[in-house]
Amino acid sequence: MLIKITGHPKSTCTQRVIAILNELGLEFEIEQPEWATQKSPEYLRDKHPFGKIPVLHEDGYQIFESRAIVRYLAAKHKPSLVPADLQKLGVLEQFLSIEYSYFDPPFSAWVFEKIIKPIFGHGQTDPVKLEELTKKVDSVLDVYEKLLVGKDYLTGEYSIADIAHLPCLSYVINNGYDLGDRPNVKRWWTNISEKPAWKKSIASVQK
Amino acid sequence: MLIKITGHPKSTCTQRVIAILNELGLEFEIEQPEWATQKSPEYLRDKHPFGKIPVLHEDGYQIFESRAIVRYLAAKHKPSLVPADLQKLGVLEQFLSIEYSYFDPPFSAWVFEKIIKPIFGHGQTDPVKLEELTKKVDSVLDVYEKLLVGKDYLTGEYSIADIAHLPCLSYVINNGYDLGDRPNVKRWWTNISEKPAWKKSIASVQK
Ligand SMILES: N[C@@H](CCC(=O)N[C@@H](CS)C(=O)NCC(=O)O)C(=O)O
Ligand SMILES: N[C@@H](CCC(=O)N[C@@H](CS)C(=O)NCC(=O)O)C(=O)O
Repeated sequence: MLIKITGHPKSTCTQRVIAILNELGLEFEIEQPEWATQKSPEYLRDKHPFGKIPVLHEDGYQIFESRAIVRYLAAKHKPSLVPADLQKLGVLEQFLSIEYSYFDPPFSAWVFEKIIKPIFGHGQTDPVKLEELTKKVDSVLDVYEKLLVGKDYLTGEYSIADIAHLPCLSYVINNGYDLGDRPNVKRWWTNISEKPAWKKSIASVQK
Repeated sequence: MLIKITGHPKSTCTQRVIAILNELGLEFEIEQPEWATQKSPEYLRDKHPFGKIPVLHEDGYQIFESRAIVRYLAAKHKPSLVPADLQKLGVLEQFLSIEYSYFDPPFSAWVFEKIIKPIFGHGQTDPVKLEELTKKVDSVLDVYEKLLVGKDYLTGEYSIADIAHLPCLSYVINNGYDLGDRPNVKRWWTNISEKPAWKKSIASVQK
C-alpha cells in the first residue's frame, strides 16, 4: 500500500511528515499541488478545507494536518515513539503543545522570510523583519536551553516531540542561524539531526 | 489527591481544563495568579516558562498547556474519550489540530476583544475589530458546517476534540454571536453544550 502525500518538499509541514515517514521506514510519494490550486473549490472540498498542505492518502484513508499525521503514523507503526507511562505521556503532550504554541510561530515566520518568500515569488527577504524574527527565535531557544538541562531529548527519550521540531530547527541552522552559546540546545540538535532518517529526509531540500 | 490548577476561571484555556475535569468528575481547586506575576522570574521558573496559564499540579507532578492537560487527564481517567481504532484516532488528531490551527485564533481573539479586554483593564472593545473578527469566526464556522454534515460530534463520537472547542464556542454564543443558518453546527453545539459537565463548568463565568 503506497502512501501518497499532497505537499511540497520545501514546506516545513510537509517535511514534518517526510521526517516521520523516513523514521518509520515507509515508502511514499509526494504530489505537489500548484500554490494557486490550494484554494480552489476542488482542493478545499477534496483535500484540505482550509486550503493547506500536507494531506496523507493511504489506501482510501485520508487525513490532513502535519502534526495529526505524525501522531497517526507513529501510533500505527512505532508506538514506542509515544510513551505508555501516563506521566511521561503528559510531558510529551506538553512538549508537542510547546512546539506548536511558542516554537513554530517565530521559526516558521523566519523560514518564510528568508527562504520561502524569495523562492516562491512572494518578494525579497526584508532584512529588518528577519532581524526581528531572529530575536524571537533567540528568545524561544533561551527557554529551550533551560528545558533541555541534563537531557538528550525533550522528554528525556527520543519521541515524536523531537521529530516535530526538526524541519524548522534544521531550516534556520542550514541557512545561517547560529545556535550561539546554548550547549543544551546544541546537544539536542546534534542528537536529533544526526539520525539517518533525518539526513535522508531533508538535507537536500533545505537550501 | 487534590488537583490544583493555576489559572483563571475566565480564561478559555483554563476553562478547557475545567471542562475535562468536570467531564471526568474530578475534584480540583483553582489558584489564580495575578496577571502581573505571570511573567515574573519565579513564575517562569516554577510554573510556565512562557508565562502562560493554565498549569496542572497533581501530587508533585506538574504539566502546563491546556490541550496537553486535557489529553493527559483523558488518557488517565477515561480513555474512551480517545478512540482505540487507529484510523479513528487519526481523524481525532486531525480535529484537534484543526481546533488549534484554524478555530482557536479568531475565536479567542473575539473573546479577548469583547470580554477579556474590558474586564481586565486592557481598554474598551473596538467595534471595528470585533466586526472583523466576527467575519473570521463566520468563515471558520462555514467550514465546520461542512465538516459536521451528518454527524453529532466532530469525529462521529463524543471525544476530547469536542471538549477542546467548548470554551471559545460557548463564550461567543453566550455573548451575542449568532450561529445563523448552520444546522449542523447548531446540532453539534446543542449536543456538546447540554452535557451536565459543561453546564456545571462554565455557565456562571462566561458573561
Ligand atoms: N496546522 C497545519 C499547518 C499547515 C500549513 O500552514 N501549511 C503551509 C505550508 S508549511 C501551507 O499550506 N501554506 C500555504 C497557505 O497557507 O496557503 C499543519 O500542521 O499541517
Ligand atoms: N497553548 C496554551 C495557551 C495558553 C494561553 O495563551 N493562555 C492565556 C489565557 S487563555 C494566557 O496565559 N494569557 C496571558 C498572557 O499571554 O500573558 C494552552 O493551550 O494552554
